[in-house]
Amino acid sequence: MNANPQFLAATATVDEAAVQPLPNSRKIYVQGSRADIQVPMREISQSDTPTSFGGEKNPPIYVYDCSGPYTDPNAKIDIRSGLAPLREKWIEERNDTELLAGPTSKYGQERLADPKLAELRFNLKRQPRKAQAGKNVSQMHYARQGIITPEMEYIAIRENLQRQQYLESLRTSGPNGEKLAKLLGRQHPGQSFGANIPAEITPEFVRSEVAVGRAIIPANINHPEIEPMIIGRNFLVKINANIGNSAVTSSIGEEVEKMTWAIRWGGDTVMDLSTGKHIHETREWIIRNSPVPIGTVPIYQALEKVNGKAEDLTWEIFRDTLIEQAEQGVDYFTIHAGVLLRYVPLTANRMTGIVSRGGSIMAKWCLAHHKENFLYTHFEEICDIMKAYDVSFSLGDGLRPGSIWDANDEAQLGELRTLGELTQIAWKHDVQTMIEGPGHVPMQLIKENMDIQLKECFEAPFYTLGPLTTDIAPGYDHITSAIGAAQIGWYGTAMLCYVTPKEHLGLPDKKDVKDGIMAYKIAAHAADLAKGHPGAQIRDNALSKARFEFRWEDQFNLGLDPDTAREFHDETLPKDSAKVAHFCSMCGPHFCSMKITQDVRDFAAKQGVNEAEALQKGMEVKSVEFVKQGAALYHKA
Amino acid sequence: MNANPQFLAATATVDEAAVQPLPNSRKIYVQGSRADIQVPMREISQSDTPTSFGGEKNPPIYVYDCSGPYTDPNAKIDIRSGLAPLREKWIEERNDTELLAGPTSKYGQERLADPKLAELRFNLKRQPRKAQAGKNVSQMHYARQGIITPEMEYIAIRENLQRQQYLESLRTSGPNGEKLAKLLGRQHPGQSFGANIPAEITPEFVRSEVAVGRAIIPANINHPEIEPMIIGRNFLVKINANIGNSAVTSSIGEEVEKMTWAIRWGGDTVMDLSTGKHIHETREWIIRNSPVPIGTVPIYQALEKVNGKAEDLTWEIFRDTLIEQAEQGVDYFTIHAGVLLRYVPLTANRMTGIVSRGGSIMAKWCLAHHKENFLYTHFEEICDIMKAYDVSFSLGDGLRPGSIWDANDEAQLGELRTLGELTQIAWKHDVQTMIEGPGHVPMQLIKENMDIQLKECFEAPFYTLGPLTTDIAPGYDHITSAIGAAQIGWYGTAMLCYVTPKEHLGLPDKKDVKDGIMAYKIAAHAADLAKGHPGAQIRDNALSKARFEFRWEDQFNLGLDPDTAREFHDETLPKDSAKVAHFCSMCGPHFCSMKITQDVRDFAAKQGVNEAEALQKGMEVKSVEFVKQGAALYHKA
Repeated sequence: MNANPQFLAATATVDEAAVQPLPNSRKIYVQGSRADIQVPMREISQSDTPTSFGGEKNPPIYVYDCSGPYTDPNAKIDIRSGLAPLREKWIEERNDTELLAGPTSKYGQERLADPKLAELRFNLKRQPRKAQAGKNVSQMHYARQGIITPEMEYIAIRENLQRQQYLESLRTSGPNGEKLAKLLGRQHPGQSFGANIPAEITPEFVRSEVAVGRAIIPANINHPEIEPMIIGRNFLVKINANIGNSAVTSSIGEEVEKMTWAIRWGGDTVMDLSTGKHIHETREWIIRNSPVPIGTVPIYQALEKVNGKAEDLTWEIFRDTLIEQAEQGVDYFTIHAGVLLRYVPLTANRMTGIVSRGGSIMAKWCLAHHKENFLYTHFEEICDIMKAYDVSFSLGDGLRPGSIWDANDEAQLGELRTLGELTQIAWKHDVQTMIEGPGHVPMQLIKENMDIQLKECFEAPFYTLGPLTTDIAPGYDHITSAIGAAQIGWYGTAMLCYVTPKEHLGLPDKKDVKDGIMAYKIAAHAADLAKGHPGAQIRDNALSKARFEFRWEDQFNLGLDPDTAREFHDETLPKDSAKVAHFCSMCGPHFCSMKITQDVRDFAAKQGVNEAEALQKGMEVKSVEFVKQGAALYHKA
Repeated sequence: MNANPQFLAATATVDEAAVQPLPNSRKIYVQGSRADIQVPMREISQSDTPTSFGGEKNPPIYVYDCSGPYTDPNAKIDIRSGLAPLREKWIEERNDTELLAGPTSKYGQERLADPKLAELRFNLKRQPRKAQAGKNVSQMHYARQGIITPEMEYIAIRENLQRQQYLESLRTSGPNGEKLAKLLGRQHPGQSFGANIPAEITPEFVRSEVAVGRAIIPANINHPEIEPMIIGRNFLVKINANIGNSAVTSSIGEEVEKMTWAIRWGGDTVMDLSTGKHIHETREWIIRNSPVPIGTVPIYQALEKVNGKAEDLTWEIFRDTLIEQAEQGVDYFTIHAGVLLRYVPLTANRMTGIVSRGGSIMAKWCLAHHKENFLYTHFEEICDIMKAYDVSFSLGDGLRPGSIWDANDEAQLGELRTLGELTQIAWKHDVQTMIEGPGHVPMQLIKENMDIQLKECFEAPFYTLGPLTTDIAPGYDHITSAIGAAQIGWYGTAMLCYVTPKEHLGLPDKKDVKDGIMAYKIAAHAADLAKGHPGAQIRDNALSKARFEFRWEDQFNLGLDPDTAREFHDETLPKDSAKVAHFCSMCGPHFCSMKITQDVRDFAAKQGVNEAEALQKGMEVKSVEFVKQGAALYHKA
């Protein structure tokens, strides 16, 4: 299980599986208004359509790429050095930060001074950075000043995914170009539940969404390595992958591998939920090598500092932990400030009580001291730290339901309302904020969560764990929860926190991480389609066309996981020749429904049905025309 | 891949993996009004609650069991003899059938006479049975006469799952019995979209639902081995597993193994979609050993009989195939009678044309002959065959969409309306009928399918494939489709046809069959919960209680797949002692959120909060009381 049992900084190496380019894929960089805005995308090339189906060229399509430089064969990867700090100049240029001599947290200083940790420690040469006194360095602050940061422009380019360029390349691809562009660009109208996604994302739109708090850009000034991304209901639905060791198992090297593996398959952010030894050092390795935002739950580490005794926690220890982690570059903090003293007894008669680790820590503290949650009473001081490093809030749902039984109860919904109150305080400080949500919720109660969240939290991005739609499938909770995640994503959730098959049973290994990511990429994309996100259907259309035309390799490569698709195909028909064969194992070579459809199409074409003309008039018109023409055709016969 | 490459009737043996009882489970039989109504259920026993959590006894719970005698250690299993014909007496008693001398289909007779097939052939000694001239032996016919058949009573007992007995055993389990029964029997109100499920299913309710056509009991008089089950929106949502060899791969033995494997994990019906050699013999082996209804698509075999040339199909060949299969005992036939000539050209400009094999065969036939679909023109003659054996219609969706692009188009919805017209003809003959549905459909268009189906097909049970909610995840279509299946099940679909991870890529092996079943058991149960099916939450509640109390073994055993849950747990914490430990690998032994909840509960109890009293007043009252008491408590401090 332990990929790197004797992790040593001097010999740490990248996971080779994470640095292979995906098949038929090429990393491209789209340049923005300045040379140092270089937005990565994955370009998937396709083969030509077989002549029997028309013989056209199929231009490459562009997909969102979270994998960072790892999948770029031109990038030099050395995890001992970390990634290049691509945002450093942007941060410097803003001229509102200062370099610190070293960590200012007590704990950060102790760890740095401990010679026993030398062999584990990432060798960071860069000094930590902080806002100058009186300055606020949050993206929300800039947005509210009307400033479009390079991060915002980067995100606008990234979210558009070169869709117009793809459609233009179709239009100019040959005599059928216009027709192909209409075919492959067509999309069903969505049901958006109030989301309002423009056809083209502009930098100004990004700014305006961040300014009103409807989206966040998690981007700590001490994590200049990230490729900026955005979380908001008017953007592509994102997913988060949790990693992290525990007191029982796993090493630093294994966690770094899980991170590179998670982003390879599409994790938009990664949360490091480590609770075991060397949390500080593990985190440093992860952040320095992560091109995606990293989130943490600082109370976990604070608890370690008091040897697991929740009642011994103090604001001072917690505050030091926030500064320690902010100076390492954590991009968002889960803060369970909504677990109020008065909500705690509401959980006593639940089926599964408090299942959030952070929530139960705070509940225990509240009960032990008969005092209000110190995260709540010190919330404005926390805001001051957040805005000095641009750490975003992920306001934790410490009272989320841990079973169907406990769904949507007063403890959960009371806390959610308090998170709305805290959102307004955070926004007063121009601190970026998202809201965490359930949990275990049966399908018919999911929408209520979203509706209350949108109303009570003023459209701050919702970030939900699942929800799991039943409790009866331990071992398959990536599926019980993908069902709920797809729905809540459709209703308006901005980021879906994955659940792996190991949920409730154990710590996820690399296979579980990938399984969880896949289930959640599916849920997020299904939600984008259902909302009617402009262009979301382009990838479905391209893949379906490849499928219909027996372009097996393209079908694999356009999918979320080319390796698995190819492997499954090869189990039944291993020969390479089968991948260009015009049949598959389901029907065999003598009968094929796709072939028959081709006959239908040929027949219709021969009878003078003008496909191109019909298409140009739109599908509705076309359908009616075909009914008439088709009926006429056969009535004559 | 080939489990039994040299399949020989003389040496055929059962798959050992399919005959092991599930852990801590016992097959029980609940007797009906007569001694030969013995309804199987799986009883899962539980350990006691640890004393630190209350120490109560946890009575066994009862779950729906499709696995037949295979999981009964007292049953003698020999697949060469097939299962006991438990319905034989019921069928005889009705005194409306006659025994035939042998198969009456031409093809059935040829196969029986072919000495080369002897070594492959199942040795059936029983004669086939048929309705006496002028009689109708369908369950719908009996229902409409006001007759409650033993099948109907069996189903009523089966659907109730001993829920009242379970709750009663809780009530009488000790001093906290009433409280426990309320706790474990509590359920969230559902959103039923017009479903109307009584708290207790009576035999009369079963009869009335079958009489009006809102439910079907697939139960061919030549398949007396089945354990009766029902498909209808006012019953538990069911799932179907497809198996079947193809010209390219797999043997008879392998298909029988897939069937026993599918029912072990919860397949309510199995479709044999074989298209390769020895279809007739494969089917006989499957039916004789299947306790669940078997469905087929007879046009597949008819096509084999004309060497794969759709244009050579004739009504006579098809008719002979229906009789051949009806006399073997197939319980439902997919008949693509809605693929009308005028709909065929509507598919010409689709992204993926006609993806249903049956649909494309009929389309090809229609085009080749410029004639209306012979399944449509001969529909009443088909009804005559159906009612002579009680084969149910599964009216096929030959024009279902094969891509998101093609969803809800005029071809698909036109066919659906025609299926409604055919439903009324079938009902005129008292032939049981369900309707097949999509396909690939994005989430926002799923409900339209259900709404049109309910209206145009008069609430005949809907039986849908998925739907797949995106096209971009080949290798994971059990998940893309479980998302859609859970939703359409919630909206009112009665049976969900599974999709395996191999969909679009290859033929499913046993692992894929199990993965598909699991995803669909989850979808079906999530739908039951969302509809508010009475008692659906009992299993969730019991499992969540076990989870909260660290009863690891019970958590595994109450789940859908105890083997996988245990295996995942053991990967992280392999020691047996960990399964009784009051911690898990996620947080480790020094900190545990569940433990803290227990502290909260103890604290609340000590402060005089009367949980039992509050529970009796219902959760809402309780919550308010706790807020008040909790607040008072802390204000004093």
